[in-house]
Amino acid sequence: MAMVNGAALIGVDWGSTSLRAWLIAADGTVLAERTAEQGASTLSGHAAFTAAFDEVTGAWHAAHPRLPVIACGMVGSTHGWRDVPYAPCPAGAAALAAGLQRPQDGPHIVPGVLFDGAGLPPDVMRGEETQIVGALHLHETLRAASCIVLPGTHSKWTQVRDEQIVRFATHMTGELYAVLRQHSVLGRLMPKDAGPDPDAFVQGVDAARDHGDLGLPHQLFAARSLGVTHKLPHAALADYLSGLLIGHELHAGLQWRAAAGLNAKPLALVGATKLCARYQLALQRFGIPTDLVLDNTAPAGLLALARQAGLLQKEDHD
Amino acid sequence: MAMVNGAALIGVDWGSTSLRAWLIAADGTVLAERTAEQGASTLSGHAAFTAAFDEVTGAWHAAHPRLPVIACGMVGSTHGWRDVPYAPCPAGAAALAAGLQRPQDGPHIVPGVLFDGAGLPPDVMRGEETQIVGALHLHETLRAASCIVLPGTHSKWTQVRDEQIVRFATHMTGELYAVLRQHSVLGRLMPKDAGPDPDAFVQGVDAARDHGDLGLPHQLFAARSLGVTHKLPHAALADYLSGLLIGHELHAGLQWRAAAGLNAKPLALVGATKLCARYQLALQRFGIPTDLVLDNTAPAGLLALARQAGLLQKEDHD
Repeated sequence: MAMVNGAALIGVDWGSTSLRAWLIAADGTVLAERTAEQGASTLSGHAAFTAAFDEVTGAWHAAHPRLPVIACGMVGSTHGWRDVPYAPCPAGAAALAAGLQRPQDGPHIVPGVLFDGAGLPPDVMRGEETQIVGALHLHETLRAASCIVLPGTHSKWTQVRDEQIVRFATHMTGELYAVLRQHSVLGRLMPKDAGPDPDAFVQGVDAARDHGDLGLPHQLFAARSLGVTHKLPHAALADYLSGLLIGHELHAGLQWRAAAGLNAKPLALVGATKLCARYQLALQRFGIPTDLVLDNTAPAGLLALARQAGLLQKEDHD
Repeated sequence: MAMVNGAALIGVDWGSTSLRAWLIAADGTVLAERTAEQGASTLSGHAAFTAAFDEVTGAWHAAHPRLPVIACGMVGSTHGWRDVPYAPCPAGAAALAAGLQRPQDGPHIVPGVLFDGAGLPPDVMRGEETQIVGALHLHETLRAASCIVLPGTHSKWTQVRDEQIVRFATHMTGELYAVLRQHSVLGRLMPKDAGPDPDAFVQGVDAARDHGDLGLPHQLFAARSLGVTHKLPHAALADYLSGLLIGHELHAGLQWRAAAGLNAKPLALVGATKLCARYQLALQRFGIPTDLVLDNTAPAGLLALARQAGLLQKEDHD
């Protein structure tokens, strides 16, 4: 390695509302991190993306002029820097690397993944495919067959087979929580400064588990009626709602996992530590153990894709 | 009848965001109507309610000084004019009339109804109980046993037995539609001026009917992915979302109706004509005929409750 400080790659996870950039060594070590609020949905046009890109990564470019740059996420969407076509399922690192596209003076952008089959509406992801590539790179046990769940604004349940994403389903759980809390009648009873209430969270999860057939549009109303009738303190209602929504995601997701034949395969949670802990607790309520919990695997995924695409400087394999 | 013009009652359906007031004859004829935007959630304190009440009904009071006034809806909630305690299920006209409360110089306010049983979170209604009393008054076929569905922001599925509300379930369908359309990523693809698209509505209903087990948090995402992948025109996505949400309400509500033993009993829709038409169409997709569709039954319900409570002037029964 001739690189100063061992830096081999600049990687960017460029989502809708924010971005995270890393200076990554050839062995996957993150040498430096920067975050910024210039998410893809806040920018419009080549010049705006170029400016944001330079602002976040300019200092690293100056110190390491020849470093390749790779980015994943909504930066590759219709309203991003460059509309990079989705890779269809089954999609693994080779297909994703082959689909990279690069706007002038910009990063190589990872394509999202499209699942279109089973007579159902299509489903799409942008960014999570890179996290999955990273998880598979880091954990051999996930490669042959596994269920990888990425909790978030738009949670993804993914079936992996032979290191490929073969099928996945999005659940808008995090966004439902946010819009209901901020904009619906449910939020009105919830104090802004309420602390966490694990009991109420579990109560919501259990309601979805045991009575999910009553329907989410109905069960949601309990996050109001339990408060109105003083059966739950108002400070507990937000966590009850969170449990109810995550419980409904699990109620459906676990049926999906069973239908995909994954019940005996490893189950991994990939995402922010606190959110994964909520999902792990909720899964326990369904009697399902979590095999792996992984924080941010995007740097590992970006490095694996850059290497697959031959973007890294000639590496010393001695 | 000594009343000028035959007016016997002023009735008000005073909801969260608006109110409707009627001058009602003893035979139920609506002689005049006024609407206003001073919903209960927009007002605070006795003086504000008094002022709004006078503004809307003052001219009628001046012309008919001795007319009684009765109101239903959120005006009787914790944040309304007077917090009128809920009547517990089973609740019929007698219990509701017995629970009327009157703030000084204000209307007699109908209590809401509470369902608290079956080991589930409690459920509440305010306003719909009066619509139901009106429907039962107008239609003898509904009195012995029926399922009355009131579509709306917070739809109510109600089991009636022996002229009593014995059980009900709220579905936040209308509010989910509104917040998702206005505040979520789903609304971003939907043009504001899109016309109705019955085919897309039916497609959404059918998706809930046939694949509801995939879960609402998942299926909602199709209202984006179908647009992103150009499988549905963007102008069709709002009606697809509407169909999906109403379909999920029906998917759960029809199971609830079956569990209550109501499959062979009359099914009535009570509410705004256009919205009831959507529900009727959606019910057809589930193979369920609608026996009755009733527009605004609040005046009939208010009159029946006022009469039950002995509020009407001495009536001429010759």
